[in-house]
Amino acid sequence: MTQRQTGRRATWIWYPGDFEIRLHEKTSTKRRARGVPYPAFWRLDRHYSNIKFRYTYELPSEERIEIAAEGVFSLYLDGKDNERCDASVVTLPAGRHEISVSVFNDVEAPALFIEGPNIRTDADWEATSYQHDWVPAGCWTFDLPSDPPSAFRLAVTPQAPVSEEAVHDHPLLDFGRETFGYLRFHHLEGAGRVRIYYGESRAEALSPDACYSLDRFEAGAAARQAEDGIYTLADAKAFRYAWIHADPGVRWDRVSMLYEYVPATNRGAFACSDPKLGEIYETSLYTLHLNTREFFLDGIKRDRWVWSGDAYQAFLMNYYSFFDLDVTRRTLIALRGKDPLVMHFNTILDYSLYWFVSLYDYYLYTGDVAFVRQYYDRAVSLMDFCLAQRNAEGLIEGRPQDWVFIDWADLENDGAVSTIQIIAARSLEAMSAFAAAMEDEVASAAYGALAEDIKERTLRLFWDDEAGGLLHRRVNGVTQPALTKHASMFAMGFGYLNPDRQARVIRDVMLGSGVPRIRTPYMRFHELAALCESGQHERVLEEVRAYWGGMLDLGATTFWEAFDPTLADGAHYDMYGIPFGKSLCHAWGAGPIYLFGKYFLGVRPLSPGCASFVVEPHLGGLDWMKGAVPLSGGEVEVDMDASRIRVRATGGQGVLRYGLDGETIELAIPSDGSWIEAGLR
Amino acid sequence: MTQRQTGRRATWIWYPGDFEIRLHEKTSTKRRARGVPYPAFWRLDRHYSNIKFRYTYELPSEERIEIAAEGVFSLYLDGKDNERCDASVVTLPAGRHEISVSVFNDVEAPALFIEGPNIRTDADWEATSYQHDWVPAGCWTFDLPSDPPSAFRLAVTPQAPVSEEAVHDHPLLDFGRETFGYLRFHHLEGAGRVRIYYGESRAEALSPDACYSLDRFEAGAAARQAEDGIYTLADAKAFRYAWIHADPGVRWDRVSMLYEYVPATNRGAFACSDPKLGEIYETSLYTLHLNTREFFLDGIKRDRWVWSGDAYQAFLMNYYSFFDLDVTRRTLIALRGKDPLVMHFNTILDYSLYWFVSLYDYYLYTGDVAFVRQYYDRAVSLMDFCLAQRNAEGLIEGRPQDWVFIDWADLENDGAVSTIQIIAARSLEAMSAFAAAMEDEVASAAYGALAEDIKERTLRLFWDDEAGGLLHRRVNGVTQPALTKHASMFAMGFGYLNPDRQARVIRDVMLGSGVPRIRTPYMRFHELAALCESGQHERVLEEVRAYWGGMLDLGATTFWEAFDPTLADGAHYDMYGIPFGKSLCHAWGAGPIYLFGKYFLGVRPLSPGCASFVVEPHLGGLDWMKGAVPLSGGEVEVDMDASRIRVRATGGQGVLRYGLDGETIELAIPSDGSWIEAGLR
Repeated sequence: MTQRQTGRRATWIWYPGDFEIRLHEKTSTKRRARGVPYPAFWRLDRHYSNIKFRYTYELPSEERIEIAAEGVFSLYLDGKDNERCDASVVTLPAGRHEISVSVFNDVEAPALFIEGPNIRTDADWEATSYQHDWVPAGCWTFDLPSDPPSAFRLAVTPQAPVSEEAVHDHPLLDFGRETFGYLRFHHLEGAGRVRIYYGESRAEALSPDACYSLDRFEAGAAARQAEDGIYTLADAKAFRYAWIHADPGVRWDRVSMLYEYVPATNRGAFACSDPKLGEIYETSLYTLHLNTREFFLDGIKRDRWVWSGDAYQAFLMNYYSFFDLDVTRRTLIALRGKDPLVMHFNTILDYSLYWFVSLYDYYLYTGDVAFVRQYYDRAVSLMDFCLAQRNAEGLIEGRPQDWVFIDWADLENDGAVSTIQIIAARSLEAMSAFAAAMEDEVASAAYGALAEDIKERTLRLFWDDEAGGLLHRRVNGVTQPALTKHASMFAMGFGYLNPDRQARVIRDVMLGSGVPRIRTPYMRFHELAALCESGQHERVLEEVRAYWGGMLDLGATTFWEAFDPTLADGAHYDMYGIPFGKSLCHAWGAGPIYLFGKYFLGVRPLSPGCASFVVEPHLGGLDWMKGAVPLSGGEVEVDMDASRIRVRATGGQGVLRYGLDGETIELAIPSDGSWIEAGLR
Repeated sequence: MTQRQTGRRATWIWYPGDFEIRLHEKTSTKRRARGVPYPAFWRLDRHYSNIKFRYTYELPSEERIEIAAEGVFSLYLDGKDNERCDASVVTLPAGRHEISVSVFNDVEAPALFIEGPNIRTDADWEATSYQHDWVPAGCWTFDLPSDPPSAFRLAVTPQAPVSEEAVHDHPLLDFGRETFGYLRFHHLEGAGRVRIYYGESRAEALSPDACYSLDRFEAGAAARQAEDGIYTLADAKAFRYAWIHADPGVRWDRVSMLYEYVPATNRGAFACSDPKLGEIYETSLYTLHLNTREFFLDGIKRDRWVWSGDAYQAFLMNYYSFFDLDVTRRTLIALRGKDPLVMHFNTILDYSLYWFVSLYDYYLYTGDVAFVRQYYDRAVSLMDFCLAQRNAEGLIEGRPQDWVFIDWADLENDGAVSTIQIIAARSLEAMSAFAAAMEDEVASAAYGALAEDIKERTLRLFWDDEAGGLLHRRVNGVTQPALTKHASMFAMGFGYLNPDRQARVIRDVMLGSGVPRIRTPYMRFHELAALCESGQHERVLEEVRAYWGGMLDLGATTFWEAFDPTLADGAHYDMYGIPFGKSLCHAWGAGPIYLFGKYFLGVRPLSPGCASFVVEPHLGGLDWMKGAVPLSGGEVEVDMDASRIRVRATGGQGVLRYGLDGETIELAIPSDGSWIEAGLR
């Protein structure tokens, strides 16, 4: 019950999560492979079609309200459901009354907008799916009756090609760098077929029989759909190049495109004495921004799906750059979906587990306990679902129907995989933190004990003292000899190894020559983070220069899904047996954002919402670096060279930590934005 | 894998159950209260939007197929999901190959139709919702590409009013009896408003401010939508009368209606020496037929929803009349819906339990073990859900969010209600039978033991020897003194009482004067069945004549939701505090169909599919009766007077059982349709 609150803004409301679930359903079916639909291969959850909203008011005099709904609605007062009304203008009686509004919509999520002098839909309203579940209504920024949630689309802005050349008499447009959006024909005329071959690379656009994305249309019909003389194609594509084949009778003035994007601004910054690293940072940012959309996507050309393991990394990069929490929350909601849990997220066991760690990171970087509360029950049921797969030794194994992914590599993943156990332990620690935030100390302790248990078992059963790391898997109670970097680096990243073992892992596993190399930026993200955790900053910068710099040397304008520097020039584009199947703009390629912010600028939250944080900068051999990292309620700036560190922060209880003459020194950082400086000589 | 089978017919296929689930979603939101939407107040389950079909073929030569889909589709062979095609004509290669077709549709259930000389969609195809669930595809009678499942609608045929009179200068049409469909205006002309007030009764149609169903339209706009000079209203209504108010400028030739119905034919029959009973039988049939629609509805005017307790009775009536198994299966599927189970069916605990008994009856009357197999898993999970509500004494109690209904009567239903336990015991017996049909003897025995346990506890804890019946409920381990007929009559109907207790129940509860009377035809159905079970046939006919005959005496053309003969003439139409809120065409009013068929003609299945059955006719004081009852694979005819019984049957192992000189005699009934005769003197 809320008293009249003059001044609150009316906004569209819905059943919480259903806007995101519906948007995810639509987004997950946009993929086209050479023009042919290719929907996600997992269950796509759906919004509730039948919803009821309620709100109790107290008014000194009657009030006229206007009602808009997405769906068929009816309104009644004080539970009198046989006295319904579906007029768009209603006069509410004075006094204390409960409004109920049922909305049914089997296409888009049912949504409601009510506006009166005092009575206005907002998060104070409640919603039910008729499952004994009155919950605060979902809402966002749809504050006009003419701007309903179902009409949501990203921002667009025109872009022109930077060059055009004729190849075999057909125009090849180059937009200068990877982009995403809708091609547009200005003043299209004539009749005949038009075919467009898109390419992330020039080679792809020039391969009509093999490029991944293409469009076909008939010019006459298209011209009739033009608005203000411009025909805009219906589906957005990811591309840098477009090669346009048209029948002889077809003419146009020029071709441009409508760039589609989330209007996010970078709240971080990074510059340093090595301009290559600066270029890598900027290219990473752009790569991440292109994949920051309705949700964090894996890549913008091929799948365009929401993958939990990919999103886990995008979340982390985002905390050090755009700090866009809308996309983060949408992605967390879409991944969790609805019950019943039958398959794992994206069908992958590890990807269900990453969700806990992702939600924990969200909590840590934002302190948004309300969101954790909203999803706590679903976190509990997801954990129950995962724990049900423990074997006789208490280790989590994939079921026959599960994909245990870990990495694109030659891995055998049946039995109990050590990396899974490590992520599971971290997930249980996350659950323990969530339960504590819910003030359920019993559950918190129970999850904590489970985390300890699985961690202890894993370190005991998989640690191989000869190899100096965690072996990869255990089958029928027997640990197998195969050694991979994955479990060891996750264990190190989560702080699960004692200093001795950490040193062994660095020497024998991470830097050892006998262990299979990691080839995906996906796992290099974790690998390089682990190396940073153990102080190998210089080594990491070398790797970044070679790996990401290697892509730049090949002309990359965004970072790729995979990169093998040993391949010949033209051999980089195929993947999964598909010509040009490799995504050249893949979120997980943007890892340097995270590495630079967390391990070089050195900013790390210590408690939820960055209420306390540490700044522990490392030059890693650079002459100087400076940059910024967003905080939940402010930002941190770091400026360092070999002689001194300067730091300022707005908000939070920050500590600058650095070494001097073999000693570790800590200085409190004022929260008022004033600079402090620490000498290093 | 299926070899080529020339001659099989192509038919539309879908994920099994999803056609029904989607139809149910649409049907459950058709209710309008005085023109205002009134959707069902429970979660409406939804079809999977993302589906994949598969089929493995072996062809000696390549073959051209045509593909139609409801939704966006793509096809590929042999798991090569990166080589998709969405052409509507495809040439399949010779040899052995697996076809996969993904179909996405977020509005209607994804459906597929493929037709080639040999390759044709049908029940041999499989479907998955991407949940590790390859199951046989659903299909029905949609055998043309131009007749997709989403276009399903019931049959229609024109009807004309039997009379028209002017009341206050507005035409009042009388269609002679209750009907259902779309009003039509022939040669509508002019401009102005038209308002239609519908009535199941004359009084209702003549109450513009209170009638339940109404329509409003503007004549000019309507006339422009006319086809062949006829404007048909968009929404169907239940009514006998329609009072039409039109502005002066509006004219039309005549008004008729399009009757909407399931083309089911009565395979039963009943006639007897009392013409009143014949009229009751025919009116019951018509009442049931009107409610036999997309699903078995409760009533056609008000809710138009699928209620499990109501459907339970309609199913039974249907086995003695239309034997329409399509509507039965659709209703069973819609009621079970999808997981997760959070609330009970229609929010009512008893209504979840009735589903087991209904499915058991379906199995018993049809022998359709394939359908039981398809829903066995969902039956198991529903039973788990119900059993989770057992209290410390092992009795099932309603949760705070549950509606424990039992009957429209002054009942207190918190704590453990005895009627719930009796229906639960029967449900567990049903589960035991299903498990046995699945050849899971362990589960069958376990369910059987649970049934025995709950039955034994109930009879022990609720039987009151002084009252001679089962008391109504038990709260915190204390059985409360209130006595109702419900539990005792269910226990008797299910054969749970020994002869002594049965006699006590008949004398002290069923016929005793101190027990609250049952007022709804809903529970009179069970009450009269219980009386028949104990041989009170004459008494039952008296009740039928008084109760159903009483409605006929008041001019009923279909039977009502409730009837209190003591009310004044004009006082019959209100219910739930709504003027004209009472449904005058309610499925549960058609109970005599079942009573006459099962207890007077006396035909009862003894084993699934009526493989064996008994015919035990009772005249109940009539001079003669004759009639027919459908069997799964034939029919039974009975012709009886005081001197002899004649019986014939087509199919099944039937036994005629009758009494002669105090002895019970059994005669085998030949299955070839020839008559046998037994003398009674």
